[in-house]
Amino acid sequence: MNDDQTMQLVIVRHGESEWNKLNLFTGWTDVDLTDTGREEAHAGGKALKEAGYDFDVCYTSLLKRAIHTLNCVLDELDRNWLPVTKAWQLNERHYGALQGLNKADAAAEHGEDQVKIWRRSFDVQPPALEPGDERDPHVQEMFRDVPKEDLPYTECLKDTIARAWPYFEQEIKPQMEAGKRVLIAAHGNSLRALVMQFEKLTPEEILEVNIPTGVPCAYTFDKDWNVVDKHYIGDPATIEAKINAVANQGKVKK
Amino acid sequence: MNDDQTMQLVIVRHGESEWNKLNLFTGWTDVDLTDTGREEAHAGGKALKEAGYDFDVCYTSLLKRAIHTLNCVLDELDRNWLPVTKAWQLNERHYGALQGLNKADAAAEHGEDQVKIWRRSFDVQPPALEPGDERDPHVQEMFRDVPKEDLPYTECLKDTIARAWPYFEQEIKPQMEAGKRVLIAAHGNSLRALVMQFEKLTPEEILEVNIPTGVPCAYTFDKDWNVVDKHYIGDPATIEAKINAVANQGKVKK
Repeated sequence: MNDDQTMQLVIVRHGESEWNKLNLFTGWTDVDLTDTGREEAHAGGKALKEAGYDFDVCYTSLLKRAIHTLNCVLDELDRNWLPVTKAWQLNERHYGALQGLNKADAAAEHGEDQVKIWRRSFDVQPPALEPGDERDPHVQEMFRDVPKEDLPYTECLKDTIARAWPYFEQEIKPQMEAGKRVLIAAHGNSLRALVMQFEKLTPEEILEVNIPTGVPCAYTFDKDWNVVDKHYIGDPATIEAKINAVANQGKVKK
Repeated sequence: MNDDQTMQLVIVRHGESEWNKLNLFTGWTDVDLTDTGREEAHAGGKALKEAGYDFDVCYTSLLKRAIHTLNCVLDELDRNWLPVTKAWQLNERHYGALQGLNKADAAAEHGEDQVKIWRRSFDVQPPALEPGDERDPHVQEMFRDVPKEDLPYTECLKDTIARAWPYFEQEIKPQMEAGKRVLIAAHGNSLRALVMQFEKLTPEEILEVNIPTGVPCAYTFDKDWNVVDKHYIGDPATIEAKINAVANQGKVKK
């Protein structure tokens, strides 16, 4: 899969979670995959296996919907033994005080236009959590080993990029430059942070990028980190349908 | 769970695997848990949760029956986000050329007494694999990053101890001495390697130790690594039955 000239990275976004299904703002809430979500992950793993992919190291977030997605993929690849690093920097965008709210209720409370801005703008943060709120990462066990000053009370996409991209540069880039084939299982917005930089996109452009769930996307880079190839792995018709579904979801739901 | 005076370690042996069920010599063969094995692991995780245990770091082998056991336990503890290190040194004892043989067939081929010696002696190795055999770890993908000279063609219990115990001393001990609460999910013989050293047992004594499957065992050490407490976690009657089952298995099966 790899030679001296190029570097290989595959990213995969987790499949349907319990809160996707309920139409709630999820963010850092640690909800699990649904059965459908697990099936999506297994299908992604099978597609990688059939296409002959192999990896040396894996990365994921601290959230179980991403970790379980990775586990399903590794099961299909028969690569359970690969090293896995879990990093809070790859977590989904933190949705602040909107976390746990139904998307319709949020629109009723704050107005439809305002919610649309929080969801679709690059640099407008949703309302912040009160310190000590049970949703505040500063008081959650999951983040007890993370420096308090690094943890957010809310995030816009720009904030998510500001912690996900440096993590990639500091931790993952050196692995790839040393020839390691990397697999990342993460979230819509933490993956957007990477895609924006890989593809040198503007804020307007990255907001239009919809990464389909459970479909592995393979990047090949040259030594200077130019993208020499990018393609989704799996059945083309299924992938096309998934990309459209994600794009439409953004339009239909408020 | 922990204070400045003591160190906490919990070990758990994986539950029933597909080859346990078929009565085959398994060793480093990467077979999965059965449904029963997964249930055992979940029960172990639930027992830890009910007893109020928490951990900072986890270790397991490269074999999926141990990795999946750990995953089930972490699911129950709601601790999927804990760091997990996978180490070949925690693999089961390598069973050499016996791997994949039915235990009855092995007795027919080599004689019942000889097989008993290989199974129950401390320092007599089973027949070695031929180099390049598909079961030879030197040619298996799982071990591609392990120095070739460290990999066995067969092992007696003494050999297993000779790689599992130094791993514990070099990698896990410093974590515990730094105050980390450690969870290890591994195998009958790699765990025996640890138990032998913890409890200062002789070769004869460790051969009599039968670690029940899926039942977490909690050790508390003082600063000089003396065991100040050891107990299994879960329902006492179930644990007693499991310990007897493992002990009898050793006697009944040839």
